[in-house]
Amino acid sequence: MDKEFAIKNGLELIKKSKIAMVGTNDGEGFPNIKAMLNLLTEGMSTFWFSTNTSSKRVAQILKDKKTCVYYVDQDSFMGLMLVGDMEVLQDQESRKKLWFDGCEKYYPQGINDPDYSVLRFTAKKANFYYGLKNISFEIE
Amino acid sequence: MDKEFAIKNGLELIKKSKIAMVGTNDGEGFPNIKAMLNLLTEGMSTFWFSTNTSSKRVAQILKDKKTCVYYVDQDSFMGLMLVGDMEVLQDQESRKKLWFDGCEKYYPQGINDPDYSVLRFTAKKANFYYGLKNISFEIE
Repeated sequence: MDKEFAIKNGLELIKKSKIAMVGTNDGEGFPNIKAMLNLLTEGMSTFWFSTNTSSKRVAQILKDKKTCVYYVDQDSFMGLMLVGDMEVLQDQESRKKLWFDGCEKYYPQGINDPDYSVLRFTAKKANFYYGLKNISFEIE
Repeated sequence: MDKEFAIKNGLELIKKSKIAMVGTNDGEGFPNIKAMLNLLTEGMSTFWFSTNTSSKRVAQILKDKKTCVYYVDQDSFMGLMLVGDMEVLQDQESRKKLWFDGCEKYYPQGINDPDYSVLRFTAKKANFYYGLKNISFEIE
């Protein structure tokens, strides 16, 4: 498997995924996983999510930015894992970037709800697998 | 949401899941995630997986047993995360426990293939969520 195949198929996997698995460190040495809506991505380098400021995940990320984002297609045994750094953002531009009709369900006070946080993940390394083969590469 | 609801629905989620997400520590401070076949579970306390002895995951687990196992239903926004310890086993009884027709695809030398390892996860704590509610509890 070459890098070109991995990037092409990895990007398609991201595009068709409803959710991404986000991995964080819980502060007691255990990895934690949570599915988040796959809202907005820029290639394989930048991934945007939103969550509650009061959530456990935000507290974990503020203490340790080292995280991972994982996409999987369970039918074709294809997966893409990216490791990198996650930031918690609350500026107006970031809030607008991810807001969509229906977000009020999660953030009743609207786009400026203090409990609305935007997460921006910047990937450093990728691992893509398909069937029994896999390839690792740096994200530039 | 009470614990009884979480256990009932969490067990159903495990039962219907084809895969589980397994979270490990990569030794450089980053959480890693990989989907593994949901082969055998005992309630919410013990979870069995199989993988290649030569895999990155086995190397990571041998260095750090602190792991997590996560199940998600992306359509109903239901998820169950368990944190606990993972062991790497190669004894005959464990090998037999997980072996099924078709495993030769992954372990060409058969049930005694040195590249065949069994993973046993023992859960300590659970977090179950459904919609906007979630509950954490200890696994006894």
